[in-house]
Amino acid sequence: MAKDNKVIEVKKDEDISKWYTDLMQKSELADYSDVSGCMVFRPDSYFMWEIIQQATDKKFKEIGLKNAYFPLFIPEKFLAKEEEHVEGFAPEVAWVTQAGDTELSERLAVRPTSETIMYPSYSKWIKSWRDLPLRINQWNNVVRWEFKHPVAFMRTREFLWNEGHTVFATKEEAEAEKDQIIDIYTDILKEYCCLYGVAGKKSEKEKFAGAEYTVSIEMFLPSGKAIQGPDFHHDGQNFAKAFDINFLDKEGKKEFAWQNTFAITTRVLGIMIMTHGDDKGLVLPPKIAPTQVVIIPIFREDSKETVLDECTKIADSLKDLRVFIDDRDSYSPGWKFNQAELKGTPIRIEIGPRDVENNQVVMVRRDKGEKQTVKIEDVKETVLKEIEDLETTLYDNSKKLFEESVVEVKDENELMKVIQDKKMALAPFCNQDDCEDWIKDKTGGATTRNISDKKPKGKCVQCDKDATCMVYVAKAY
Amino acid sequence: MAKDNKVIEVKKDEDISKWYTDLMQKSELADYSDVSGCMVFRPDSYFMWEIIQQATDKKFKEIGLKNAYFPLFIPEKFLAKEEEHVEGFAPEVAWVTQAGDTELSERLAVRPTSETIMYPSYSKWIKSWRDLPLRINQWNNVVRWEFKHPVAFMRTREFLWNEGHTVFATKEEAEAEKDQIIDIYTDILKEYCCLYGVAGKKSEKEKFAGAEYTVSIEMFLPSGKAIQGPDFHHDGQNFAKAFDINFLDKEGKKEFAWQNTFAITTRVLGIMIMTHGDDKGLVLPPKIAPTQVVIIPIFREDSKETVLDECTKIADSLKDLRVFIDDRDSYSPGWKFNQAELKGTPIRIEIGPRDVENNQVVMVRRDKGEKQTVKIEDVKETVLKEIEDLETTLYDNSKKLFEESVVEVKDENELMKVIQDKKMALAPFCNQDDCEDWIKDKTGGATTRNISDKKPKGKCVQCDKDATCMVYVAKAY
Repeated sequence: MAKDNKVIEVKKDEDISKWYTDLMQKSELADYSDVSGCMVFRPDSYFMWEIIQQATDKKFKEIGLKNAYFPLFIPEKFLAKEEEHVEGFAPEVAWVTQAGDTELSERLAVRPTSETIMYPSYSKWIKSWRDLPLRINQWNNVVRWEFKHPVAFMRTREFLWNEGHTVFATKEEAEAEKDQIIDIYTDILKEYCCLYGVAGKKSEKEKFAGAEYTVSIEMFLPSGKAIQGPDFHHDGQNFAKAFDINFLDKEGKKEFAWQNTFAITTRVLGIMIMTHGDDKGLVLPPKIAPTQVVIIPIFREDSKETVLDECTKIADSLKDLRVFIDDRDSYSPGWKFNQAELKGTPIRIEIGPRDVENNQVVMVRRDKGEKQTVKIEDVKETVLKEIEDLETTLYDNSKKLFEESVVEVKDENELMKVIQDKKMALAPFCNQDDCEDWIKDKTGGATTRNISDKKPKGKCVQCDKDATCMVYVAKAY
Repeated sequence: MAKDNKVIEVKKDEDISKWYTDLMQKSELADYSDVSGCMVFRPDSYFMWEIIQQATDKKFKEIGLKNAYFPLFIPEKFLAKEEEHVEGFAPEVAWVTQAGDTELSERLAVRPTSETIMYPSYSKWIKSWRDLPLRINQWNNVVRWEFKHPVAFMRTREFLWNEGHTVFATKEEAEAEKDQIIDIYTDILKEYCCLYGVAGKKSEKEKFAGAEYTVSIEMFLPSGKAIQGPDFHHDGQNFAKAFDINFLDKEGKKEFAWQNTFAITTRVLGIMIMTHGDDKGLVLPPKIAPTQVVIIPIFREDSKETVLDECTKIADSLKDLRVFIDDRDSYSPGWKFNQAELKGTPIRIEIGPRDVENNQVVMVRRDKGEKQTVKIEDVKETVLKEIEDLETTLYDNSKKLFEESVVEVKDENELMKVIQDKKMALAPFCNQDDCEDWIKDKTGGATTRNISDKKPKGKCVQCDKDATCMVYVAKAY
C-alpha cells in the first residue's frame, strides 16, 4: 500500500552539508534545476517565503514604504556609474548580449541589485523638498553569478528578496530609518523563523559596495559557521552624486539627497532549516509551516466513519490554524507519521477507534517527539499552548547556539584557537583594511561579521593601535 | 505656492495614443526606463497590480492551486524540446551569454514563459497517479523581446504575470479546469478593472505555441482595436511527451499526463486605463484605486482647526476605505482638485468653513464631475452608493463599447467595410490557415480574435467551405 518512505540518509552532526542537501530534496522544499546554481522553490518553501514576504510587507507599509517595480535589465553604462558599486558587482553579473537573432549594441546586466536602474528615475522624479522623503520598496528576483559552490536557499545564483530604496532630504532623517528597518527584520526573524541574530555595523572592508556603512544581522549555524541575514545600508550621498539626485530645499537651494537601501532574502529559509531541523527531517516554526497540525486517522473499515467524523470535528475546532486531515487511502498511518516528521509539521494528532471511545487523541510535538494523550475538549487549548512553547523553544535554542559560540579574545593566539574550534571570536579591532586582511589570511578564511555594541578593550587583535570596536570574527557559510 | 499643474496635452478622441502616453507619465503610473521597451511600474500602478494579483491569487488558492517559483533562466536545449513552442518564442528571446568575464558554454534564455524550465522537474516529481493532479502557479516577470513599438503596460518587453501550470491524469479532468480559470479571470476583469470581455477559442493559427487549443478573453479598446486579455491553454499531451511527464495509473499502466497553462498579465492595467480614462486624466475602478476618497480641506488660518477636525471625523467614518486627507500646505485647493482628477480618484470631497457650519460637504464623482452637496451624516452612505454606481457605470460602458463595435458580416465586402470603420467583424469561418492568412492580408492586418459561441451560418467569409464557427475579426493593438 505505502510507497517507500523517504529517510534522511546522513545524521546532522555527522555531515551537516550532506544532511542539509538530502533534507532539502526529500522534504520537497527544493529541487535543483538544470541551470547551475539556480533552484526551484517547491510549493512548501515558496509558501513559507510568501508568509515572510507578506508579514514584512505589512510592516513596511505601516512605516510608509510603497512598493514599485523596476526593470530586470540594467544597461552597462548605468551599472558603471558608481565606481565602488560596479567593482563589487561586475564580476558576478549575468549579461544579456543577444535578443532573438540580434546582437545588442550594449550589454544588459541582469540586475544583481537595482540601484543603478532605479536612480535615473529618482533623479527625474525628485525636484523639490516636497517630493521627499521617497520611500520605495520592491519584491523581486536578482542574479549574482557567484562561482562558489551553490547551496539551496543559502547561496543561489538567482534569489528572491526585497530591496528598499529610500531618499531623504537630510542625513539625520535617512539614518533615523535604520532602527525602523533593523527592528522589522529582527522581529521577522524571531516571530516567523524563530531565529536569533545580532545587529551591528559591518567593517569598512565588508560594507556594501557603494555604501557609507552597512548594518547586518549576523547569525550562527550549527555547522559552526556564521551567516549574514538581512541588512541595511546608509549610502550617504554617494549614489545621489553619481546619479544626480538633487532637490531644491525650502530656501530654494540645490542639495544632494541622502539614501538608504535594505534587504531580506530567501536565504533566511536556509538558515531556519539548518538551525532547527533534526535527523528525522524539518522542524518548522509554526507561523510559516504550510501545515501547522496534521490529523492522522487510524481505522479499519468498520470504524472508518466514526474516526473520520471525529477528525473533522477536531479540525473544525482548530479552524484558525492550517490543519490537514491526512485521510489518503493509499498510504499507511506509519508512512504518514514519518512524512509529517520529514516535513516538519509542528503538531501531529493521531486518532483511532479506541481514542474516539475514550474521548481522547494522541498528540506529538515535532521537536519533542513524545506522545501525550489529550482529552478531546482540551485539544484546541493544548495545540495553542504547544505551538507557542515550540516557538519559544526553537528561538531559545537559536539564541543559545549563538551565545555559546561567542568567545571573547585578546590576541592572535586566542583568536586562532576560537576559529579552529569552529566558534565565533569577539575581538578588539582597529577597523583598518590591513588588519582585516591579516585576520582572513591568518585564520585561513575567517572574516569579520559585524561590530558588537560592546565597548572596545585594549589593542587591536593584530596591530598596536587601540581597538576602536569589538568585532565578531568567524568563518562564514 | 502651487507647482504648475500637469495637464494632459492631447484629447483622447483626437489622438488616443498620444493621450495615453502622456497620461501614463503625468499621472505618475509609469516611467520609461533606459532599457528600450522595459517600463517602471511606479507605486500607484504597482499598487493596482498588487490588488489584482492578490485577488486572483486568493481565487486560485480556493480552487486548490499552490504557488512555487522556478528559475529565471532556461538552458537553450530545454527551450528547444517542444518544436512549435521554440519556433514561437525563439525570435523574441533575450539570451544570457556571459557571466562576469566568462563566456557561458550554453546560452541561457531569460524565460519568455516557463514550460521548458518547469517540466523537467515535473517529470521527476510525477511518478504515480497519487502525485496527480499537480496544480502549480507562479507570479513572476517574463521577457519577450518584441520588436514592435513598445507601449507602457500594453506591450512591454518585460512584463509581470501569473503562469499556471497544471497536470492531470485524464484529458477530462484537465479540460474541466478551463471554466474554473476563465471564470476567475472574467470575474477579476469585471470586479477589479470594470472591463468586459468575451471568452472563446483562438483559431488554429493563433493558438499558443505548443497548445492543443487556446481560450482567450478578448476586449475592445476605444481606439477601435481589439486586444487580448487573460488566456488559458489546454496542451493535451504535447509537453508531456516532449518532457516525458508520465505516471503509473491505478492499474500500473504507464500513461502520459494532460496539461494546462494560463495567465493574466500587467497588460490588463493598460486596457483599464485606456478604456476608462478621459481628457482630465485617469478614471480608476474603486477596487483598485490607491486612494478611493480624497478629502480636500479649504480654509484660512482662522478656520484651519475646525475644518481639519471635520476632515478627520469624515475620514474616520470611512475607515474601511482608502482615504487621503490632502492637507498639504504647499499646494492650493485648486491644484489638489486637478491632481485628484488626473490621478483618477473615484470620490473627491471638498470641505470649507461654511460647509462645517452647515453640516455638509461637497462631493464629486470622478466620472461625472458634477458637484453635489451631501449632509455629513449621509457621507458614508453616499460614498458607498456612488462607488458602487461608478463601478456599474464603468463596466456598462466597457460592455457597450464592445457590443456596439461588433458587426456580423457575410462576405468579403462587408468584412472590409467593418475593418475600415475600426469595428470588429463577426464572420463565418472555416478555421483553416489559408483563409486566416487571406483575412490578414486582405484587410491590411486584421486578425481573428477568438471564436464566438454563436452558431455558424453559411459559407466561410473567404472560401467555399461551410463555416465551422463564427469568429471575431479586428485589428489588434
